[in-house]
Amino acid sequence: MSEHMEIADFVPRLRHSISKWKEQVKIKNGLRLRLDFFLGFQSLQPEGFRFHHAESDYVMLVRWLPEDEPDTLPTNASHRVGIGAFVLNGNNEVLVVMEKNGGFKGTEYWKMPTGVVDEGEDIYAAAVREVKEETGIDAEFVEILAFRQSHKSFFSKSDLFFVCMMRPLSSNITAQESEIAASKWMPIKEYVEQPYNKKHGQFQKVAEICRDRAAGAHVGFSAVPVSSASGKEVYLYCNNNKGSKL
Amino acid sequence: MSEHMEIADFVPRLRHSISKWKEQVKIKNGLRLRLDFFLGFQSLQPEGFRFHHAESDYVMLVRWLPEDEPDTLPTNASHRVGIGAFVLNGNNEVLVVMEKNGGFKGTEYWKMPTGVVDEGEDIYAAAVREVKEETGIDAEFVEILAFRQSHKSFFSKSDLFFVCMMRPLSSNITAQESEIAASKWMPIKEYVEQPYNKKHGQFQKVAEICRDRAAGAHVGFSAVPVSSASGKEVYLYCNNNKGSKL
Repeated sequence: MSEHMEIADFVPRLRHSISKWKEQVKIKNGLRLRLDFFLGFQSLQPEGFRFHHAESDYVMLVRWLPEDEPDTLPTNASHRVGIGAFVLNGNNEVLVVMEKNGGFKGTEYWKMPTGVVDEGEDIYAAAVREVKEETGIDAEFVEILAFRQSHKSFFSKSDLFFVCMMRPLSSNITAQESEIAASKWMPIKEYVEQPYNKKHGQFQKVAEICRDRAAGAHVGFSAVPVSSASGKEVYLYCNNNKGSKL
Repeated sequence: MSEHMEIADFVPRLRHSISKWKEQVKIKNGLRLRLDFFLGFQSLQPEGFRFHHAESDYVMLVRWLPEDEPDTLPTNASHRVGIGAFVLNGNNEVLVVMEKNGGFKGTEYWKMPTGVVDEGEDIYAAAVREVKEETGIDAEFVEILAFRQSHKSFFSKSDLFFVCMMRPLSSNITAQESEIAASKWMPIKEYVEQPYNKKHGQFQKVAEICRDRAAGAHVGFSAVPVSSASGKEVYLYCNNNKGSKL
């Protein structure tokens, strides 16, 4: 909606369209509805308010005061954060999954477990949780091997993806039924040499880093607890100079 | 607004309150207005829509279809991303600033230039830009020394802060008038031993990493261009095994 329409006129038209689209099975990735004008915002904008952010059930508006001081309201969140878990066992085997849906469907690619960091969740904790959810394997975080930043991954937002080295604490796999078609321990050589890696520079580089790390020839960032300026315990990820051996 | 009020009734009351607050100089950090209910959303929620995100001038709603497949709409952005620039010259001096406003006001702390990554901006590029803006110094990115994740830094959002090692390409400082009270080159020993660092674990640890890096005894992550699955050039940050010497 880039021009004004009374919501009372709009809703019935939207409802009609959705039911038509459903019948014709045209919609594959949901609907997006951008509201630039609606009754509430039109009334609040002249009062100096702007949107700050929205979550699923609310929208937050802000207005800076006092007017004679520079606006220091923090900017909106700009990045989604994801993790990939490189779980290596004592036999030089990697924990891999084949996904039921998503971007890798149909590629025959055995990938590391991946997922999105939850609200308020630490990166290392997200890696532990995702490995458990997707494969049933208990694992502990060792270090971050690499991370990748990309842009415009959804709307105008950016993405940070952290590759986490993990040590398994169990070995029996129970693949998550809803998302994972199959999961297994795969020799690292076989993992690195998959055709999909060879075709995609980013995947090839990450696979090589994992191979080098398995051989003790790559240094990552450990998670070091430190106290923040406000006294909270936070994690600083850095080379802790303790070497790269597991 | 956690209960329904007609916007036409609300706006005049809000306007009256703001003018009263302005007179009484009560407001120090702006106003926040959370709308859970407004005419547009009340009408769209029954149609299956939820808020996804908002930017300053619009709010985005989404609804998943087809209904018999799992909802794979990407989650909203959860993190703000900031940088700190550790600019070290050939005389083992660090580029430092004293800020006019913000959290360090009144601390007498000489800090590294910091800033927020703009929409669609790479971390290394944000570090180059912020150093130039705050101090007039041209610098090039060398590597990421460490990063820190913290939570609930504003509303329910999290924060990632990357410490970037930089090499200066010029030496004459021109401090930014609006934000920077003073800027200078400071011997690294003096920088590390500031009282503020000793009192705050996170700052102390970062200062020590910078000191170790200056001595060639810390390995960070370089920025390596790789091609993503969709063919875009993106940066992977990792130890490139080329050693830690400048």
